[in-house]
Amino acid sequence: MTESAHMSGEAFRKHAHELIDWIIDYQEKRVDQLPVLSQAAPSDILKQLPVDPPESGEPFEAMMADVDRIILPGITHWQSPNFYAFFPANTSYPAILGELLSAGLGVQGMLWATSPACTELETRVMDWLSSMLGLPGRFRSTSSGGGVIQDSASSASLCAMLAARERITEGVSNRVGIERPLVAYTSSHAHSSVEKAAGIAGIGRKNLRLVDADETFAMRVDRLEEAIRRDKAEGRMPFFVSATVGTTSSNGIDPVPEIGELCRREGLWLHVDAAMSGTAALCPEFRFIHEGVEFADSYCVNPHKWMFTNFDCDAFFVADRGALIRALSILPEYLRNQATESGAVIDYRDWQVPLGRRFRALKLWFVIRHYGVKGLRLHVRRHVELAQRFRSWVEADPSFELAAPAPLNLVCFRHRGGDDVNRQLLDRLNQGGDLYLTHTVLDGKVTLRLCVGQTRTEDQHVEAAWERIRDLGRTLS
Amino acid sequence: MTESAHMSGEAFRKHAHELIDWIIDYQEKRVDQLPVLSQAAPSDILKQLPVDPPESGEPFEAMMADVDRIILPGITHWQSPNFYAFFPANTSYPAILGELLSAGLGVQGMLWATSPACTELETRVMDWLSSMLGLPGRFRSTSSGGGVIQDSASSASLCAMLAARERITEGVSNRVGIERPLVAYTSSHAHSSVEKAAGIAGIGRKNLRLVDADETFAMRVDRLEEAIRRDKAEGRMPFFVSATVGTTSSNGIDPVPEIGELCRREGLWLHVDAAMSGTAALCPEFRFIHEGVEFADSYCVNPHKWMFTNFDCDAFFVADRGALIRALSILPEYLRNQATESGAVIDYRDWQVPLGRRFRALKLWFVIRHYGVKGLRLHVRRHVELAQRFRSWVEADPSFELAAPAPLNLVCFRHRGGDDVNRQLLDRLNQGGDLYLTHTVLDGKVTLRLCVGQTRTEDQHVEAAWERIRDLGRTLS
Repeated sequence: MTESAHMSGEAFRKHAHELIDWIIDYQEKRVDQLPVLSQAAPSDILKQLPVDPPESGEPFEAMMADVDRIILPGITHWQSPNFYAFFPANTSYPAILGELLSAGLGVQGMLWATSPACTELETRVMDWLSSMLGLPGRFRSTSSGGGVIQDSASSASLCAMLAARERITEGVSNRVGIERPLVAYTSSHAHSSVEKAAGIAGIGRKNLRLVDADETFAMRVDRLEEAIRRDKAEGRMPFFVSATVGTTSSNGIDPVPEIGELCRREGLWLHVDAAMSGTAALCPEFRFIHEGVEFADSYCVNPHKWMFTNFDCDAFFVADRGALIRALSILPEYLRNQATESGAVIDYRDWQVPLGRRFRALKLWFVIRHYGVKGLRLHVRRHVELAQRFRSWVEADPSFELAAPAPLNLVCFRHRGGDDVNRQLLDRLNQGGDLYLTHTVLDGKVTLRLCVGQTRTEDQHVEAAWERIRDLGRTLS
Repeated sequence: MTESAHMSGEAFRKHAHELIDWIIDYQEKRVDQLPVLSQAAPSDILKQLPVDPPESGEPFEAMMADVDRIILPGITHWQSPNFYAFFPANTSYPAILGELLSAGLGVQGMLWATSPACTELETRVMDWLSSMLGLPGRFRSTSSGGGVIQDSASSASLCAMLAARERITEGVSNRVGIERPLVAYTSSHAHSSVEKAAGIAGIGRKNLRLVDADETFAMRVDRLEEAIRRDKAEGRMPFFVSATVGTTSSNGIDPVPEIGELCRREGLWLHVDAAMSGTAALCPEFRFIHEGVEFADSYCVNPHKWMFTNFDCDAFFVADRGALIRALSILPEYLRNQATESGAVIDYRDWQVPLGRRFRALKLWFVIRHYGVKGLRLHVRRHVELAQRFRSWVEADPSFELAAPAPLNLVCFRHRGGDDVNRQLLDRLNQGGDLYLTHTVLDGKVTLRLCVGQTRTEDQHVEAAWERIRDLGRTLS
């Protein structure tokens, strides 16, 4: 066997076993000890990597040595129990096994025919998820709608906007371009992906209205209504509203029932982005977040954020799959096949931007079956409980204040010492390596965000985080 | 430990070892024996999957039993040595190890700061690939350009079109929408993703001109020039040409040098789509396919097709990263960080449609280091040699004819008995399960395609394929 040959099964087994041990050691021991935010400076990693590719093959041991020596210091540890930044991207062993099986099968599921199981398992698991989250029946594949796994909520926003554009222009925008200005709406606290989508889809970012929010950082429906009226009066065509259930910045929850009624009255497509917070609806006591979702034309939640499923796995649902498919379908001769022509199957390539697709349903199937609905509820409840404990400490400390309502697992707070103190607090905390927080600006003030959602975050981690924040706050003010 | 708890490290090790054995057994023994094209009928898989999700957790053994019993009969085996359909999506053990490590680290590399190693390893490996394929220096990160991993060539086409739209309209299209009809061009044999991108980007599918091809299925530059002249005369704005190096349908190679000179003269963005065939440029003797690529503004090749790297891994290069970033960047408060503001780092979220990203560079790094450039060349050469042997058998048999030039690893051919015979031949071959071929239509005639590129395809497989095709042809005519 030469080094340029394929790796033998025997060698693969050996390296895989070592790698499995490496992963267990990383997830259960090392990740706690490493600085959460990588302390690398720009080019630190790059300059250790050879400028030229190797002419001859190298042993796998050399690569794993470089993973430890070069790569690991350049990792920001999303799987650390002390990761509270942005939104979580939690994982679990069942999900990792799902990714491994997907890689071992090496299936490309662009068409039903290119692996019926890849399509049909996805359909079933999306229907499961829809029922687990109490979503309306029309999002099921057995009705007029259905679910599909996208890479991210950004792509879900784009696909929703494209389907909405298709519906309002009756296909004209897709065929010949946008003939009359279309206008979309979202709250000023919504995720930037809506603005990105408006640019991509040729709507124009300026034709996305960022509607004012109220004191809970939820969209103001009166302002939305005014904006729609003004745009119509000025000859533009309102077509799309993206409401958020749990904004990235502060976990604001838009009033979906009122927005939904307005959208129905005005004939606008309503997309509901529940990327992180939708997972909370697994628990009946948090299902209030889905009030009004029955008005939605589309909806998304990310099991890759808070449901122990490795990135990428965004679950995107539509009430009318027809509009989505008309916006994205393509059928060249070389993809024609009997199953597609029969109309009896789903070809998910027509539900997304890319053509190809990995077998991503496996990991979500493994997660749901490993935990069961009860198990998932248990862990989600636990995360909310931990965040609520943190919130109570903030509220009880006179040096700190809560900056937003914090209904679930994200707590926005600030030191009362002003922006400079909060900026210093954030930098010192993150440079210390014990934990990783990110910030936002609320009511014009620098605000810290602590989001609980990593798989291994427990009481002692959140307690230590609070002690560290509180003590550092004392030295700064 | 209850069933709803996280899986223990011990249990993970056990199940992972079993799964590794399963994968070795699948890839080295079972996959040869199973019908390549799944013989499942619509809903065969779906109806075996419970309608409701499990309330309580299940043991992992139950899932693996279902993988064997329910999922496997619904798999079309892309990793079979007898898979000759579409384009390959080959894998390798080093790539699977890369996917496993990526899943175990669970990193989300949207920003440089969210894992510097995820960004910097990608930058280095893209530069390696650019040099391995003899691409122009301006595609390197050390120049004005750079490479990025996209999920697919479809997304690369879309990003190229968005960057081109940005450049020609000086940002207006992104900000306020498309004010004057923009026109794009590709050959009538190009991939459908270009049309899909034109729809998504608000250009309008009708504003994509499908330029006639010559007898080798390559774009006719005289027709392209005419089309551009006519569009300009009629007040539209030509802005984008997508040339293909190795079309999906027939491996046609567009005359990139002539197209490139025309694009430069007219100020049009030139994208070169070398999704499958670009890999051939690893070998000096096939590097002729990259003639003229020095004119390109962007280029893509898919290591996930023919370079032993698991899907998804499309390598997308731009000569001027500025246009791409202006088209796709977004910077909300909650993503602001010192590294980004310093301008000293790459944030790959601004090079793609989604915000989030997996650590996909690991698998490509492992593949290049395991095989070395020499090893990759060896296997690519072997595939081309096998396809050329098949081609010689077709040419020598009076019942068959070659339908296109077949310069590399894709052979388009047909039985001389006419469309019905070829359709029957295809259906009978695929239903038989011994191999999987797909078709196209060339010169108005049904044409079979045999594409050699799977990791384990050897002489005996291609020989057996030819014997099966030849013998079945005899019984049908």
